[in-house]
Amino acid sequence: MNFAEKLQQASQRNNSLLCIGLDPDPSRIPPHLGSGAHAVVAFNKAIIRATQDIACAYKPNLGFYTVYGHDGIRALQETRRAIPEDIPAILDAKVGDIDVTSTAYAQGYFGEMGFDAVTAQPYLGRDGLEPLFNWRDRCVFILAKTSNPGSGDLQDLKLSGTDPERTVYEHVASQVEEWQGTFGTCGLVAGATYPHEVEKIRQLAPNAPMLIPGIGTQGGNLEATVKAALGSGSGPVAINASRSIIYAGEGLNYIEAVRKAALALRDQINQAS
Amino acid sequence: MNFAEKLQQASQRNNSLLCIGLDPDPSRIPPHLGSGAHAVVAFNKAIIRATQDIACAYKPNLGFYTVYGHDGIRALQETRRAIPEDIPAILDAKVGDIDVTSTAYAQGYFGEMGFDAVTAQPYLGRDGLEPLFNWRDRCVFILAKTSNPGSGDLQDLKLSGTDPERTVYEHVASQVEEWQGTFGTCGLVAGATYPHEVEKIRQLAPNAPMLIPGIGTQGGNLEATVKAALGSGSGPVAINASRSIIYAGEGLNYIEAVRKAALALRDQINQAS
Repeated sequence: MNFAEKLQQASQRNNSLLCIGLDPDPSRIPPHLGSGAHAVVAFNKAIIRATQDIACAYKPNLGFYTVYGHDGIRALQETRRAIPEDIPAILDAKVGDIDVTSTAYAQGYFGEMGFDAVTAQPYLGRDGLEPLFNWRDRCVFILAKTSNPGSGDLQDLKLSGTDPERTVYEHVASQVEEWQGTFGTCGLVAGATYPHEVEKIRQLAPNAPMLIPGIGTQGGNLEATVKAALGSGSGPVAINASRSIIYAGEGLNYIEAVRKAALALRDQINQAS
Repeated sequence: MNFAEKLQQASQRNNSLLCIGLDPDPSRIPPHLGSGAHAVVAFNKAIIRATQDIACAYKPNLGFYTVYGHDGIRALQETRRAIPEDIPAILDAKVGDIDVTSTAYAQGYFGEMGFDAVTAQPYLGRDGLEPLFNWRDRCVFILAKTSNPGSGDLQDLKLSGTDPERTVYEHVASQVEEWQGTFGTCGLVAGATYPHEVEKIRQLAPNAPMLIPGIGTQGGNLEATVKAALGSGSGPVAINASRSIIYAGEGLNYIEAVRKAALALRDQINQAS
């Protein structure tokens, strides 16, 4: 089974396009769970238990685990093991390096840590990504248009000599579609804060799986984004929310609020689709 | 003391522009050191002991440590602690994320792990990098032109509407020069495999520290690169070699070959400068 099939099956089983971002902020973990990396594991495990019939994927972001040094990476690996086998686990590590180093990252993140997918940077070009592409049952979600306010600094610049005229992010999307045709293991990241750009990316890359962050705290336009991502093409879609779900509640009963927030957002996405 | 001063002092003390890349490949660590993450620590510590009067900086690349999961990150942290206080330790992690996540990375890589500098991706734009820039005694080396054969896929594309016409990597270099003026904590990465591009980058960003990989195994042009990087501007320069030094020898006496290779390359760089 390849990644796209695994994502589609989880999506159908849970009637969901909702990916839950596991980005634990030390200052927002309920105090009764303790502190440090152990608290992160307890926090994540409770969220996974409470939402595994609601989510189509989970996405821990590496950054939040580096805060605790190697204990944090141990917590990341325990978190990965707590994600059910039949739900994709995406490591948001935004990898981008030359080939020998990407080979090592693939061994680490796919092999040793067992993630189904990673996010990756397009800046180094195809040869730096190929060692990741070569893991045929995994997926590499490449950044096209990111959700942050300043993403246009580089991504929206217009290129000369392309016909029709293209921006950097459009160029990346069309390259990824080409690589997806060759490898079958390439996906794209497009932020829900830019629904118009999501639509353009989907037109340029109809077959690539799409990972869409920026819903919830970042204020992305849910309805426009879901329509744009599903509008044309066959590639599966995962819409990620992190903070608006995992910090939905406080104190001893936080997990009830988490489940409620996840259910509500899943249903809201389904209504828009 | 800021990072540029720390790098300049180490450089003067050891009469060296040589940065040594600590990228341990499991298959190339001498067998008498054992295997796994413990062997990595032993391998790195021996290299650091043998070269700390020769190197101006050390640069472990995160990818090679992820291979061992959390034990690898523990080895990375032990490696960092083995680098003398007065020699800069650069973590090559090619970080690139939105602001809240970059804040976490800064806490992890600068705070918890104690690195003096990280490498970073320009793709997300300025707001994603600012949390790293705000650590005033550290440095963020941003990729402009990378050393790999396919780096032109994106970096060499020409932008429309810039006067004079600029490529993506030139645009990044000029942005970094501007950010360096504001924050004083920004550097650039430019590959020795492209000496002409190194020269252009130095012209656009005369004040930013430059980290130059691609010497040695990757076949970069040493003399042209050193001249280009030092040619104009005041920003300090660190020229990185990894494989050609750390795998210079085999068996029980590998460390003698490592020291010899480091000395030879340091002198070769000095002759070109």
